[in-house]
Amino acid sequence: MSEPEILLALDFGGTKLSAATTTADGAEANLRTWLAHDRHYSPDDADAAYEQQAMIALARSVLGGSQPAAVGVSFGGPVDFETGTVRLSHHVDGWEATPLATLLESTFAAPVCVDNDANVASLGEHRLGAGIGISSLLYVTVSTGVGSGWILDGRPWRGHDGLAGEIGHTVVDPAGPLCLCGKRGCVERLASGPYMALDAAERLAAQPALESILRQPMELTGKLTGRHVAEAAAQGDDLARDILHRGGWALGVGLGNAANLVNPERFVLGGGVTKSGPIWWAAVWQAARATALPEATFDIVPAELGDDAPLWGAIVMALEARRKVT
Amino acid sequence: MSEPEILLALDFGGTKLSAATTTADGAEANLRTWLAHDRHYSPDDADAAYEQQAMIALARSVLGGSQPAAVGVSFGGPVDFETGTVRLSHHVDGWEATPLATLLESTFAAPVCVDNDANVASLGEHRLGAGIGISSLLYVTVSTGVGSGWILDGRPWRGHDGLAGEIGHTVVDPAGPLCLCGKRGCVERLASGPYMALDAAERLAAQPALESILRQPMELTGKLTGRHVAEAAAQGDDLARDILHRGGWALGVGLGNAANLVNPERFVLGGGVTKSGPIWWAAVWQAARATALPEATFDIVPAELGDDAPLWGAIVMALEARRKVT
Repeated sequence: MSEPEILLALDFGGTKLSAATTTADGAEANLRTWLAHDRHYSPDDADAAYEQQAMIALARSVLGGSQPAAVGVSFGGPVDFETGTVRLSHHVDGWEATPLATLLESTFAAPVCVDNDANVASLGEHRLGAGIGISSLLYVTVSTGVGSGWILDGRPWRGHDGLAGEIGHTVVDPAGPLCLCGKRGCVERLASGPYMALDAAERLAAQPALESILRQPMELTGKLTGRHVAEAAAQGDDLARDILHRGGWALGVGLGNAANLVNPERFVLGGGVTKSGPIWWAAVWQAARATALPEATFDIVPAELGDDAPLWGAIVMALEARRKVT
Repeated sequence: MSEPEILLALDFGGTKLSAATTTADGAEANLRTWLAHDRHYSPDDADAAYEQQAMIALARSVLGGSQPAAVGVSFGGPVDFETGTVRLSHHVDGWEATPLATLLESTFAAPVCVDNDANVASLGEHRLGAGIGISSLLYVTVSTGVGSGWILDGRPWRGHDGLAGEIGHTVVDPAGPLCLCGKRGCVERLASGPYMALDAAERLAAQPALESILRQPMELTGKLTGRHVAEAAAQGDDLARDILHRGGWALGVGLGNAANLVNPERFVLGGGVTKSGPIWWAAVWQAARATALPEATFDIVPAELGDDAPLWGAIVMALEARRKVT
């Protein structure tokens, strides 16, 4: 009997690099068990060359001397899927036009498939997580940003420029606050964790008489996070509830618009902000349902693979890359 | 040499029924020539039974005794594509759950394919009009309503409930005016011809001192149309320009959101409102470009098949239905 083939998954997640291995059996049949799994945090001044070297070292460590049969890679930025070329990173310098698939193919002597993190996580949730058996879905990650990936007719839909899924920069309130992208009232501007925290901090500063338990973390640490807002909302804080509700509303309008426009069977929501509790989920659901036409049926469910969604999606890509060559 | 096969196209367009015939040669190779083409306007009190009888008579007249090899049908309302069953008509009573494909198959002894008008027109423009050679597009018709149909990866994308393409009921301004659907600031509420006319009429009534050449048609006929607004805007009327610009802006935001979410290669715009001239087209383009991320490349072009887009799309469906059975 021959040794089972090893599949390698790599996740370039901004500052966090992750690598993991499994076998085809470990990935399929909903087993989802890693043979080995490790991560590495890049220093703030890391560039693309550093990340590539650190990732290869991390990969060699999880492989433990084995040869991978195929490699799947999730990259936190725009990727040309056909050629496996990274276009750029918004977080790390030096990634412009990096032929990452080609580089890793020569390093590991195996087929390599590279896509951006939202598409890869969407694939992971579809094949191994909250989207099993669902023909069309939008996976949305709501954390420091708001990104998403489509599965249409059982396959990833990447769009003409590989840009499909930018729900974070759809506009839901043209009179809303200014987003970093230059527009007003983008979903991301209203619904992402850092922006909700910013809005709460600005309200505290603008209204010195406003009572809020958010004043305590603000004074202790000098800043707020999305988690502070969610926790204060859970404790009944009015300001926090307002902000969290508005964030959930904005995402819900974005989902409802997506339901009208594309009519997927399911929305799968992942990322830190989805841990904000029932106030947030109710706001999302209510706005999505109110925005979508009554005839559009869909559900909205939490992601199941958590932070490992990109790694499991990378394993699905590795499985497909292996099938292509054998 | 055998006679060329006849393909029959039927279009149930609300109050207008159209039927036309061509051969496979007449449809393909971009010839777009009808053998016969006729239309019939239903009386206001027509119901589904009337429309079916009138359409069959119209079809027999354009067929002139020939037997169609296949039939394609465009229906102005929601359709279950798989079974060819009309769900309902928003304009004509009695269409609920009508098995139209089955009815017409027994009438014409030929395979029949039925879909809703936006999807059918989208297919027509993709295969024979402004979308030839384009892999992904959204065809949008802007007239009394705003509807659309997707072509993704060269094929119609209908969505989980056959509802995809409802761009008219995506929200672009939650503080906007109330739409018949119950929401505020839908694209259709701001961009359709009758709603633009309504908004202009309301502004005239609310501001008696406001000077506008729209007062003349308003006083002569007691109401305004989208065409009045477009013509007055072309003559420099400020009120008409405002309304037309806002309509173009709303559609453009909807297209920009669709570009971010789905990233199609092209938008094809048809329908009466697209004849409103350069003010309108510039507003659409400007808002779409400002809303879409800079990396999303797309163009926005006028439809080429005009009122015949659903009929030509029906011919494409007939061609495919014929291929399936031979």
